[in-house]
Amino acid sequence: MVVEQKSRTRRYTVVGTKPVRHDGLDKVTGRAKFGADVKLSDLVHGAILCSPYAHARIRSIDTSYAEALPGVLAIITGADMPRTNHGVLNIGEEGAVNAAWASNRVMAGDRALFRGHPVAAVAAGDRNTAIEAAKLISVEYEPMDAVLDIRQATAPGAPLVHPDLVGDHLGEPVTRTNVATHFRQGIGDPATGFAHATAVVEQEFELSTVHQGYIEPQTATAFWDASDRVTVWTSTQGAFGVRSQMSSVLGLRESHIKVVPMEIGGGFGGKIAVYLEPAAAILSRKCGRPVKISMDRATVFESTGPGAAAVIRIRMGVDASGRITAAEADMSYEAGAYPGSPVVAGARCCFAAYDIPNVRVDGYDVLVNKPKTAAYRAPGATQAAFAVESVIDAICRSIGMDPLEFRVLNAARPGGRRSDGPRWGSIGLLEVLNAARSSAHWNAPLEHVDLGCARRGRGVATGFWPNGGRRSTVHINVNADGSVSLIEGSTDIGGTRTSIAMQAAEVLGIPVEDVRPSVADTETSGYTDVTGGSRTTYATGLAAYRAAQIVIREMRFRAARLWGIEKEDIEYVDGTFRASADAVISDTRLRVAQLRGIAPEDIVDADKVFKAVIDAEFTMTFRELAARLEPEGEPVSGVGVVDLPEAGGAFGTHIVDVEVDPQTGKTSILRYTVVQDVGTAVHPLFVEGQMEGGAAQGIGWALNEEYILDDNGRMLNRSFLDYRMPTALDLPNIETVIVEVRNPLHPFGVRGVGEVPIVPPVGAIANALHDALGVRMTQAPMKPSRVLEAMGVIGCSGSGRS
Amino acid sequence: MVVEQKSRTRRYTVVGTKPVRHDGLDKVTGRAKFGADVKLSDLVHGAILCSPYAHARIRSIDTSYAEALPGVLAIITGADMPRTNHGVLNIGEEGAVNAAWASNRVMAGDRALFRGHPVAAVAAGDRNTAIEAAKLISVEYEPMDAVLDIRQATAPGAPLVHPDLVGDHLGEPVTRTNVATHFRQGIGDPATGFAHATAVVEQEFELSTVHQGYIEPQTATAFWDASDRVTVWTSTQGAFGVRSQMSSVLGLRESHIKVVPMEIGGGFGGKIAVYLEPAAAILSRKCGRPVKISMDRATVFESTGPGAAAVIRIRMGVDASGRITAAEADMSYEAGAYPGSPVVAGARCCFAAYDIPNVRVDGYDVLVNKPKTAAYRAPGATQAAFAVESVIDAICRSIGMDPLEFRVLNAARPGGRRSDGPRWGSIGLLEVLNAARSSAHWNAPLEHVDLGCARRGRGVATGFWPNGGRRSTVHINVNADGSVSLIEGSTDIGGTRTSIAMQAAEVLGIPVEDVRPSVADTETSGYTDVTGGSRTTYATGLAAYRAAQIVIREMRFRAARLWGIEKEDIEYVDGTFRASADAVISDTRLRVAQLRGIAPEDIVDADKVFKAVIDAEFTMTFRELAARLEPEGEPVSGVGVVDLPEAGGAFGTHIVDVEVDPQTGKTSILRYTVVQDVGTAVHPLFVEGQMEGGAAQGIGWALNEEYILDDNGRMLNRSFLDYRMPTALDLPNIETVIVEVRNPLHPFGVRGVGEVPIVPPVGAIANALHDALGVRMTQAPMKPSRVLEAMGVIGCSGSGRS
Repeated sequence: MVVEQKSRTRRYTVVGTKPVRHDGLDKVTGRAKFGADVKLSDLVHGAILCSPYAHARIRSIDTSYAEALPGVLAIITGADMPRTNHGVLNIGEEGAVNAAWASNRVMAGDRALFRGHPVAAVAAGDRNTAIEAAKLISVEYEPMDAVLDIRQATAPGAPLVHPDLVGDHLGEPVTRTNVATHFRQGIGDPATGFAHATAVVEQEFELSTVHQGYIEPQTATAFWDASDRVTVWTSTQGAFGVRSQMSSVLGLRESHIKVVPMEIGGGFGGKIAVYLEPAAAILSRKCGRPVKISMDRATVFESTGPGAAAVIRIRMGVDASGRITAAEADMSYEAGAYPGSPVVAGARCCFAAYDIPNVRVDGYDVLVNKPKTAAYRAPGATQAAFAVESVIDAICRSIGMDPLEFRVLNAARPGGRRSDGPRWGSIGLLEVLNAARSSAHWNAPLEHVDLGCARRGRGVATGFWPNGGRRSTVHINVNADGSVSLIEGSTDIGGTRTSIAMQAAEVLGIPVEDVRPSVADTETSGYTDVTGGSRTTYATGLAAYRAAQIVIREMRFRAARLWGIEKEDIEYVDGTFRASADAVISDTRLRVAQLRGIAPEDIVDADKVFKAVIDAEFTMTFRELAARLEPEGEPVSGVGVVDLPEAGGAFGTHIVDVEVDPQTGKTSILRYTVVQDVGTAVHPLFVEGQMEGGAAQGIGWALNEEYILDDNGRMLNRSFLDYRMPTALDLPNIETVIVEVRNPLHPFGVRGVGEVPIVPPVGAIANALHDALGVRMTQAPMKPSRVLEAMGVIGCSGSGRS
Repeated sequence: MVVEQKSRTRRYTVVGTKPVRHDGLDKVTGRAKFGADVKLSDLVHGAILCSPYAHARIRSIDTSYAEALPGVLAIITGADMPRTNHGVLNIGEEGAVNAAWASNRVMAGDRALFRGHPVAAVAAGDRNTAIEAAKLISVEYEPMDAVLDIRQATAPGAPLVHPDLVGDHLGEPVTRTNVATHFRQGIGDPATGFAHATAVVEQEFELSTVHQGYIEPQTATAFWDASDRVTVWTSTQGAFGVRSQMSSVLGLRESHIKVVPMEIGGGFGGKIAVYLEPAAAILSRKCGRPVKISMDRATVFESTGPGAAAVIRIRMGVDASGRITAAEADMSYEAGAYPGSPVVAGARCCFAAYDIPNVRVDGYDVLVNKPKTAAYRAPGATQAAFAVESVIDAICRSIGMDPLEFRVLNAARPGGRRSDGPRWGSIGLLEVLNAARSSAHWNAPLEHVDLGCARRGRGVATGFWPNGGRRSTVHINVNADGSVSLIEGSTDIGGTRTSIAMQAAEVLGIPVEDVRPSVADTETSGYTDVTGGSRTTYATGLAAYRAAQIVIREMRFRAARLWGIEKEDIEYVDGTFRASADAVISDTRLRVAQLRGIAPEDIVDADKVFKAVIDAEFTMTFRELAARLEPEGEPVSGVGVVDLPEAGGAFGTHIVDVEVDPQTGKTSILRYTVVQDVGTAVHPLFVEGQMEGGAAQGIGWALNEEYILDDNGRMLNRSFLDYRMPTALDLPNIETVIVEVRNPLHPFGVRGVGEVPIVPPVGAIANALHDALGVRMTQAPMKPSRVLEAMGVIGCSGSGRS
């Protein structure tokens, strides 16, 4: 790891260190409690029956055989959903419509809209009985034509996913369409821009559906009590978000729902939406006992929200000096069976790294008969970066310019224009690009060893993510032993217990081990938005910072009371409360004079004496003062709340060397470097982990991962053996260069880390493959068959790195 | 129920109503989770081996047979306790010594000090194996002479419970004594006082050991993890107290211990000390798994802390006018095997109801070979009141004065002297006595039906309890649906979730159902002292009041932001935020003028117009404003902390009619009335419940309850069949008269309720028996054998009510 700092104006005691995470031991010893570990008295088990068709009318559901199976306690279908879960679906009517979609998504109404769509659920005394009973439910389907990708969905006369949908196309209502939304944004005049271009590149790119591939399948447990209060135990990225979705779907007030977040075995955006929770709750209402439902891996693939497939056409022009004059994008993203793909974020991130005077982006949110897409780490941005960074690479090649030099020349910079609206605040793209240029990797020649036809190539790409802000609450309570309890609503996914505790510890001047963080439920923590969008260390961290400052303010007041001086006369520096000389001087002067038997004005070494007295009697560490809060005085407790704007955004640039096996088409990653602006690295090891993990996921997306569907929408590779994610054996050690350009919106300069590193890999690898093969790959994954096809075109005579 | 109010200056919306308790449904449907309901992965079970001797040297412990039993996972003895748990025990060295006592109490060292003293503990895969293994532990005891009551313990040459103890006798160190402490307090000069007396009564009273008789036996579960962090699940009156005791006994920092308070099936002071928790934790450290240990009823009786037996001698003198001139008390209370009986509180409460110029009280804390006594509802006060109220009754009879008139004449009153130090603040004794005098019961003649020899009598007695203050923390978080979450550290024993939520609701102007209270663990709630001493509704309630006020302050700020005015221009009354006319007047004036096409100064009906505008546009309920906190603005969260002085103390006067069966000596309660000053009855039904419950326990104490020990200290009646607590069949409907004399230390006037009603019953019944039989009963319980003995003395010719 290399850390490049810019404008870090002061050094911290805790921030920037690498303590062991608070939940580490629990997790490595298997003691941490995940969704599947929930044990309750009277717990019963549920199973879900899912549609085997991607699109089918549900003519009838006969549950009588299932009901007759001994041990079956309750069965529900779409008819048991508290809200109408089918009917007119319109864009623009926020709450109610979204609630209907959410309700329909978790339990089908009169039609199954995707393979894996739940149509019924069973609760039984044990899991096997529930599964057997689900098989005994007889559903009469009338299969219907399905649309399984963007081209099918947008073809004339395509079957409609929602015949009643009224889409919003550039502000106009449109019926009988699978395009839920078509929006446009931009600046300047692209036509004029292209007129000034001396070179124009236009190309279309396509990405398949992928999955976040979190290791822990969804498991939800719910109990609906006799007073219509529902408790939900679930692994989620955001307990308050689950509460709000459950409120919508169940038609209960939020305050009637308590969500207990369990530890989470990965989310990456895929554990924000509810899937099993509503069915578990409604089954529980029916049978009066807590109901637990767990998915298997196949169901995770077919019934939860994957990352969106997309078709993206990019056109960019440059002038003779290499400046980009215009850019256009037409971006279609699959929403799945309900509106809401990440195309909006994709459009926003698409050209973010470049300062372009004329931009047009058209975005299309396209319905298909597949599960509703979910966020997947920097949702929408990776797809866009694959397309844009490939086109940038093509431009560099066409004008013969070094790709990093080109990016520096055209880089977005503070105060510059953004294609999606306001001007840039503090951003660190130039610093990232310069760090990439001076990195060991970029300056090491790509070794072209003789391996017969083996091709090697190097590629670079840049990516952007805005990094979220939003709302968080942190409570801090002081213990008499000088430690504090920290209560937060942020699910800990990537070590946020520690990165947040570190910020509190920095303010409090205590070791981070003395901060005991608890991720609490929705009734014992204050409102906190989802752990996602790279917001948590920034926003919840700032809430912790504020709570700690309130604690210090109160502690200063206590010190003042103990010392009999004003709190304004106490400073708190480096974990120590200390009286100002002025506050204690007159008293001390008298005491010293009396002791020495002289007049107060005759003390010659006054400064030294006063300092000694203050050192001895008017100085206390946080821990010393905490021990003196008892037995007298109120408990000390501080609450910090934030509602923050986005953290200002961050950029990363990745460098990758690949080698292609000419016999199999297999691409190996020889070397991989992630350069990224993280603002301030609160816990550099965790930051590195995020950078490495994002890159690893992006590499899988680039080379192997995809949903392979048959014509009926059935996924053919719905296991981790067949859905090929990279393992440690597939990857080299990923090198990281942490760039620190402080975020002025956060007192420690925190900017957010987790999303950016998944954005560049697909583009970077495509560019490296072009470097190796001389062919532009326009479809992800760039799997062996596609590479072989590309190599077949060029034979065995392609160039190495140019 | 009758409610008598005094100086209730305003009416409340929520305080004083009778909502359903928040935990009610959970409790009546069996869903509430008590200590025994804890379920954890890998949970194993423990059993305790207890000493069969009241006093014995432990020569050796052989655990080899037990270890060989399949399924046994860990065995511990006193040698496994982290701290030295035997050695010199001195009074006055607070922390360390108390820790040694606590450690020795939960696991014997080289001597067993009471029958039921734990000497070893076993963890095994199931409970039966643990119990069998405990039986296989072979302990070689050398039985020693024991002292089983105060007379034995204080007899010359008595065996010593702690040969090394250095007692504190009026400030002097004393060795080789079973009297751990002898203290003296008082005012004036009793000798002079008695010299002015025209009548003096002196008498000695005795009370047996009793038990709180909570329905739920102790159950503790503990898990000691590899990083030396301990989690404890237990039914307790105070999670933070358990944390602090565990810290002492285990030698861990408090922040390494997390205590999760389960629901509690009664405590009454008996669930403050730890018993099983340390052994469960140390077993868990040894076997690496969570360990759960449950007591059976016999063990609860023999191994947990009972209410103290006592011997109390009282001497009081009155002058010709009926004014008390002097009072003396010599009070010896059994501490059990370690120092710390409730004699201090007993001494303080003893003469509290009376304004006496000359008082001396000598208190003796006496060690005996019995389990360490624990608090039992108004600890120490019932014993004292039995003695003092009996003597008062004797004085009334001797001078021929009505007992209530006498009490009014001599009553403690605001500003008057207290025998234990400072002067009285606001107290409501006179109001209570007057309410008793005007009660239906007092004014109904006692019916002397002809029942052969059956005797009927009426008695009255008064009791006092100071009502605790101390430290509490409450957090309140606002939900978008207008409800709030309330997080508290106070275990809910008598409905305090509701009585505290009501105070928050009163401030917030919302229904109490919209306050969702959670009793949280020590890592998610702020520091809060024990639920006990009648402090909770007063102190934690005030913390809730303060938290709610902070929420309102913040909400007012939000309303100001929404309306574009200053927060000072918004008033909050009856749950509604409302802009002041001044704040919106100029703007409104312009708008109205424009609308009407006239000059602003020409608006004639200005006041009406402005009011209408404010009503329509500048008025929001709490719920309306809460809904507008999203999506913009920080979450709203308030924390309230208190460190309160005692609530000012409260008095109760009980009236009881008894009937004695001459054949069996059985006493029946014909009618019973509780009159009590509660400050303000937050939830009158719960207040009534406390008054009735305290009286019921006091009646049991008076008539039946006692530890019957054989000469070896073995309890002969260690089941609820033989330890005879009153059932619903034994008691009449207990009448209650709630007197409300506001407590000026609390904004709603709350004073505390739970302890006072157990104080008068023993004395009241003794006085009623004297009324019936003409004989002064001086030993509690006044069981049939003692009554028969008393009747034998007087034959069948005793007087009825005089």
